[in-house]
Amino acid sequence: MDYASILGEIADEVRPELVHGKVADYIPALAQVPREKFGMAVCTLDGQEHVVGDAAELFSIQSISKVFTLMLAMKHVGQEYLWRRVGREPSGNAFNSLVQLETEHGIPRNPFINAGAIVVTDCIVAHDTAALRSVLSLVRKLAGNDDIHYDREVARSERETGHRNRAIAHFLKAHQNLESDPDEVLNVYFHQCAIAMTCLDMARAFLPFANAGILPRTGERVLGRLRTRRLNALMLTCGLYDNVGNFAFRVGIPAKSGVGGGICGVIPGKLSVCVWSPALDEWGNSHAGGKALESFVWKTGYSVF
Amino acid sequence: MDYASILGEIADEVRPELVHGKVADYIPALAQVPREKFGMAVCTLDGQEHVVGDAAELFSIQSISKVFTLMLAMKHVGQEYLWRRVGREPSGNAFNSLVQLETEHGIPRNPFINAGAIVVTDCIVAHDTAALRSVLSLVRKLAGNDDIHYDREVARSERETGHRNRAIAHFLKAHQNLESDPDEVLNVYFHQCAIAMTCLDMARAFLPFANAGILPRTGERVLGRLRTRRLNALMLTCGLYDNVGNFAFRVGIPAKSGVGGGICGVIPGKLSVCVWSPALDEWGNSHAGGKALESFVWKTGYSVF
Amino acid sequence: MDYASILGEIADEVRPELVHGKVADYIPALAQVPREKFGMAVCTLDGQEHVVGDAAELFSIQSISKVFTLMLAMKHVGQEYLWRRVGREPSGNAFNSLVQLETEHGIPRNPFINAGAIVVTDCIVAHDTAALRSVLSLVRKLAGNDDIHYDREVARSERETGHRNRAIAHFLKAHQNLESDPDEVLNVYFHQCAIAMTCLDMARAFLPFANAGILPRTGERVLGRLRTRRLNALMLTCGLYDNVGNFAFRVGIPAKSGVGGGICGVIPGKLSVCVWSPALDEWGNSHAGGKALESFVWKTGYSVF
Amino acid sequence: MDYASILGEIADEVRPELVHGKVADYIPALAQVPREKFGMAVCTLDGQEHVVGDAAELFSIQSISKVFTLMLAMKHVGQEYLWRRVGREPSGNAFNSLVQLETEHGIPRNPFINAGAIVVTDCIVAHDTAALRSVLSLVRKLAGNDDIHYDREVARSERETGHRNRAIAHFLKAHQNLESDPDEVLNVYFHQCAIAMTCLDMARAFLPFANAGILPRTGERVLGRLRTRRLNALMLTCGLYDNVGNFAFRVGIPAKSGVGGGICGVIPGKLSVCVWSPALDEWGNSHAGGKALESFVWKTGYSVF
Repeated sequence: MDYASILGEIADEVRPELVHGKVADYIPALAQVPREKFGMAVCTLDGQEHVVGDAAELFSIQSISKVFTLMLAMKHVGQEYLWRRVGREPSGNAFNSLVQLETEHGIPRNPFINAGAIVVTDCIVAHDTAALRSVLSLVRKLAGNDDIHYDREVARSERETGHRNRAIAHFLKAHQNLESDPDEVLNVYFHQCAIAMTCLDMARAFLPFANAGILPRTGERVLGRLRTRRLNALMLTCGLYDNVGNFAFRVGIPAKSGVGGGICGVIPGKLSVCVWSPALDEWGNSHAGGKALESFVWKTGYSVF
Repeated sequence: MDYASILGEIADEVRPELVHGKVADYIPALAQVPREKFGMAVCTLDGQEHVVGDAAELFSIQSISKVFTLMLAMKHVGQEYLWRRVGREPSGNAFNSLVQLETEHGIPRNPFINAGAIVVTDCIVAHDTAALRSVLSLVRKLAGNDDIHYDREVARSERETGHRNRAIAHFLKAHQNLESDPDEVLNVYFHQCAIAMTCLDMARAFLPFANAGILPRTGERVLGRLRTRRLNALMLTCGLYDNVGNFAFRVGIPAKSGVGGGICGVIPGKLSVCVWSPALDEWGNSHAGGKALESFVWKTGYSVF
Repeated sequence: MDYASILGEIADEVRPELVHGKVADYIPALAQVPREKFGMAVCTLDGQEHVVGDAAELFSIQSISKVFTLMLAMKHVGQEYLWRRVGREPSGNAFNSLVQLETEHGIPRNPFINAGAIVVTDCIVAHDTAALRSVLSLVRKLAGNDDIHYDREVARSERETGHRNRAIAHFLKAHQNLESDPDEVLNVYFHQCAIAMTCLDMARAFLPFANAGILPRTGERVLGRLRTRRLNALMLTCGLYDNVGNFAFRVGIPAKSGVGGGICGVIPGKLSVCVWSPALDEWGNSHAGGKALESFVWKTGYSVF
Repeated sequence: MDYASILGEIADEVRPELVHGKVADYIPALAQVPREKFGMAVCTLDGQEHVVGDAAELFSIQSISKVFTLMLAMKHVGQEYLWRRVGREPSGNAFNSLVQLETEHGIPRNPFINAGAIVVTDCIVAHDTAALRSVLSLVRKLAGNDDIHYDREVARSERETGHRNRAIAHFLKAHQNLESDPDEVLNVYFHQCAIAMTCLDMARAFLPFANAGILPRTGERVLGRLRTRRLNALMLTCGLYDNVGNFAFRVGIPAKSGVGGGICGVIPGKLSVCVWSPALDEWGNSHAGGKALESFVWKTGYSVF
């Protein structure tokens, strides 16, 4: 497969799409990212790495961080405890909805909606006094890059404007589904969303999910085989907010998006891919990123289906 | 009308009811109130005052305070501003529901659900730097009793356990429907709920609402005639949580309840009444209190219908 | 009180309002009614009758008929049976919502939303094989006019386009809250909505609700004193769709509206009133009708509050 | 892979599970099926067929028929027209919910909830006057068995008790999302659910979905390659009612269940599988069937993730 050519073609194809969608503007640091940005990176199990466009530029990973914290929780927290506190079903609702949380008595539908991710972070915080450091360490190890950091400015902005997430945390606390202090959990949560990475960092970090849990670079198992499958299943059914069914229909691979404009996905047994373009569609997923992935599976013929 | 006899009969009638219902237990100070307590007070426009049972005992007025803060807001805040921020419709839902708040974009349905009362308190806080003092002053003037106070212990407990109200405040803030800092507004809100009063205090304080807005004791107008009507209309359609229709059906007078077990109501043109009994029915209203008021309107023949 | 002058003033005042709102257009017979129509009638307990404008013109009473069928059910059906099948709470939702019906397991919130009225009609049909005739007989007696009829054309149109009501009836059946055949119940329901009456007919028919259940013209008791109060309470808390709180706030009297543009109300102890103007506001109530009633209570000073 | 041994082991393993769950009882024909029944069939792309237990016994395919009608619609109806009338998102709600249908204005969330399947059937009925025959013909061709029939008794029972589906059809009609007469569409719908097939029939009929749309037996393309992928994606994200995320997590293959107790799934590129056991879990999926499939993917190591 000539990935280099494919990425080049995709970059050409999506250029006209970059005028569509809307860059997230709820914090200044995100609003200032130029909408013309587009980058894409592919890492294969046999060690190839291909990039195109702005694939070496840092972007805010935002909700894609939920995959890393869930991975951490799946590794270090009892599975029964974890899945008693958060569900595994698609939300069928806007990603930050409190409605569902209320009708379901404080058990978030899945770990990729904000409420669920806050519970997952609470699971980590409750068992790890150095949660902030642990999250970053994991990400650095997965990406093989020690120069990955929290963007303090983004984290500060998130904290200042994050009333909705604050509401969710107190609501979870009111339903006895938050062990630690809401402010402490939110501090970790706002920081994890503020990690800055490049497309290549992200594709590298996702490669173990395409490889049954083993980091190909080192051969180290970073997640159990079954748990890797399950993480992929959760991405496919819950990873793209309320557009998950449509994304599975059009693209058909496990993936996770963030409002920073990134989407990371895997073709199990083959490769990982990260695309970044900041303008979002109506569901909060990167508009051009979705188009790029749709084209990528079309050109490669890859799909889990 | 022989009110003294009527109150005596009612006290006898409701005694067997005192075993039913459940005393609010979310904070220790409320949980410790003995369920056998029952008091009732009636004040008439022509100056009669009648009491029975524990009518001289202090209880936590809780949500009944929402009538006083709404009155304050109706007096001092622009009506258009006020009613743009909070609706006037029955909620058709549990009194502390976040669902409705979300589907209606942060505009609480009415001033007597928690979200609505928090908005009303925010209206006051935004225009009055001494809001805590103003609320207490109003209540003291209405009741003609300078010895009415915030129960600091109750306020402190409310603050510590009030995660749901904290969630609501941040949610309102996220919807740009809270001007002040959530913590500051909640501090006033938790205090207003923690005012301790007797049945007689309360009946006296509600008497102007039966008198077109004039405090009979002093002849002072404390609320405009039309606004008094409107306050009564709001109590009738929104004052008893999700049992408001049933209460209008059975009792048929404007009234407001609180989880401390108090219910205050008025017969426009005739009298005000306060009943207190701490055990609550499934909707959060005093069980014996509701029975007592049903009997009271039956015996007196009074009703707005 | 000089009702004739008051009605004359009101007719002048509301003229500019007749351009606002939207005439119901879901069936041709309603859509063809000219939006300029305005009529109003007042009947007092002491026998006065005053009219203005198009008060002698027939209009389709639509949902106001729900008051008559509820009255019939309250007279002839066991109260416990009736109120087990339908609630007494404001809906807090659009008047024809299926959402609430589903979350509350097939028990409609109150007898004035469509689902509740269909249940009430089913209660009548289940106990009266000549339900269609009984409804009409009651209305004729109340209005003192034997020349009141079902508009067959309207009833036919309702039946043909009434898919939503048909959905409701089958949904109730699925929840075991419909005894008779859905088609049979709907036939009565579509006919009751299609009764054609004038403002004066309607004001006369509502007069007993202002008179503790007694028809002043004949002295006959047509509904018990307590049940009359309760019917009035239900109108006040549930009679104007999802604008009931606002109507109580602005107007403050028990009333029931219909999409034909009629609104009928009572001042207990004083009078009944019917206003008709076909253009509806966003909640489905007559726009000019609401303004007229607001002006009427302002000018007369009458209110239940 | 020794499928015969694997099926044998699974049959032993699930035997103790057959006491759990609840056989569907809303119609007599389903309620009478003994809960001890268990059958399983596997068909591979290279022509192997393996069965165990009651795999040759007829059962009511119920909602699994929605896959066949969707396939028919995807083949014969314009894709844009089809997907404008029905969504592609997991419902996040009970499978027969009217709530979501109302809040989303009559556009069902996906083709596998009842409302969505009724719309799909309407698409077929609107373009094919012999829809009943076409559905059966397709199923017979896919299964290679001309002796597959509608169970008239089941269809009749469905029609008599199907008030909820009738409500849905009228509700769709009220939202202009049903072209044909509700009764006509429901007749086809009730019949398609009443098709009786064996596990082996079903596994054969699903084999093309594992084979990029080609029926291996004949080499005939029965669905386009891309559409086959999309159908599989829809099954994975929407095929198991409100347990779809959990099923993807535990089992991880595209599958569709029915309240008759059948579950059919595919491993793209490898095989199709059908399991049948009538007792259902709380989400309406076969309890033992789910266990059997979980064991099957565990033993074979197959998964799309």
